[in-house]
Amino acid sequence: MILINGDRKQHIEVTDRGLQYGDGLFETIEVIDSTPIFLDLHLQRLQHGCQRLNITCPSLELLTSETSQICQNTTRAVLKIIVTRGTGGRGYKPPEISNSTRIISLHPYPNYPIDFQSAGISAIFCQTRLGSSPALAGIKHLNRLEQILGRSEWNDESIQEGLMLDNQNFVIEGTMSNLFWIKDEQFFTSSLLESGVCGIIRGIIMDQLSTRKTPAITKRIQQQELLCADEVFVCNSIIGIWPLTRLASTTFSIGPHTRQIQSWLQQLKTQG
Amino acid sequence: MILINGDRKQHIEVTDRGLQYGDGLFETIEVIDSTPIFLDLHLQRLQHGCQRLNITCPSLELLTSETSQICQNTTRAVLKIIVTRGTGGRGYKPPEISNSTRIISLHPYPNYPIDFQSAGISAIFCQTRLGSSPALAGIKHLNRLEQILGRSEWNDESIQEGLMLDNQNFVIEGTMSNLFWIKDEQFFTSSLLESGVCGIIRGIIMDQLSTRKTPAITKRIQQQELLCADEVFVCNSIIGIWPLTRLASTTFSIGPHTRQIQSWLQQLKTQG
Repeated sequence: MILINGDRKQHIEVTDRGLQYGDGLFETIEVIDSTPIFLDLHLQRLQHGCQRLNITCPSLELLTSETSQICQNTTRAVLKIIVTRGTGGRGYKPPEISNSTRIISLHPYPNYPIDFQSAGISAIFCQTRLGSSPALAGIKHLNRLEQILGRSEWNDESIQEGLMLDNQNFVIEGTMSNLFWIKDEQFFTSSLLESGVCGIIRGIIMDQLSTRKTPAITKRIQQQELLCADEVFVCNSIIGIWPLTRLASTTFSIGPHTRQIQSWLQQLKTQG
Repeated sequence: MILINGDRKQHIEVTDRGLQYGDGLFETIEVIDSTPIFLDLHLQRLQHGCQRLNITCPSLELLTSETSQICQNTTRAVLKIIVTRGTGGRGYKPPEISNSTRIISLHPYPNYPIDFQSAGISAIFCQTRLGSSPALAGIKHLNRLEQILGRSEWNDESIQEGLMLDNQNFVIEGTMSNLFWIKDEQFFTSSLLESGVCGIIRGIIMDQLSTRKTPAITKRIQQQELLCADEVFVCNSIIGIWPLTRLASTTFSIGPHTRQIQSWLQQLKTQG
């Protein structure tokens, strides 16, 4: 089921700036027992992204009502919200008054072959680099060609994620996930000031670590230093937390800190 | 009139990767007396862009036939061709076999208040920077948020273009055009190895200059040096060549080299 501006439809206008230029934003949200998990945080990020791109954000009441409608009677699924700047404008110049387009859709939860949260995953370093673009850094916008090129680099089903570097050789994030690592009892995550997406789960983990007086340090890290970490994991709203048991040719154990953070996240999810 | 995969339609599927991720390419072509100008070069670039993104390019015969159909009985217009990777795949991962989507549409030629080709234009430097992304540099892809943010920076109708810098302070191009300058009888254009779009008109001008034994030098230039040029112009397939008579607070004369290149381009356009 797909709702476009509140109507059950499958198609949008070709002239929509979302298609013409990738002029919009999206959110991907886990749904358990008809409830979109961390919906408030996702809607806050959407609102913040709209502000940064100067796109009119649909009202949160409307979005909440429509997501609730679409999530009825679902056990587990993925909810996607797209907001584009709508139609109009002259070339790249946005229209002075824009009627944004909202697209709310429900998708099957991905069918992973094993429980990667408990067993861990193998990851590689991608060759494709993330461009440095402070104006867009952090936002979950619709310009995703770099991630597509990164994700196209492997077909090996034993590899679940590819970490992407920027042009200065700093490791930023996975093609679809954020990165954390632990070294000498300290928690770290990559700085996202120049590229990358500020993930909801990343934010939750950072909040939890701060609350517990062990704040995560945002850092610019290169490959060799990352490979010397004690624990490494990636996270996003759909996969939760996947520990890395292999990165390139280096193996890692799944450590107690990663297990602890997984447990916090699980508690928060069930609290709603 | 819009043709989507050969059919007269106005809408595309929401699941198209062009909308979901900006996973596609486009061309914008001037049409005069039912003829798309430099169509072969545009289709070559489209084909090359598809190769770089590993998108199945529709056959050139098909594209030529459909553009010809849509351009019938038009005096002057803008033809737009969009090719996306189509639907499918799993998240960012493209489907193994993709059926690309082709969208061919005709738009009114922009109604500029005066003849900027003869009178010249005023331009500014944008604050928004172009990210450095070698994997995407040169391609006319659908990820255009940087250009949108750049073009959103001014509403003053006396300004016709904004030049965009990369993060290393090199001037790359206009929001919708490529940049040339002339200094001491030498021709220059910005290097596009890390960002920017390799425009068709830029390529034609470079070919013409090479043929005449005065090849354009591709260079990384900063603002101050550009402001000391003897002549500056921007170009694209719709506007042709617009001389800059003002850039930020510096004024320029429209010089003989710019006029010469305008004249070559005009000749090539009428030759078809």
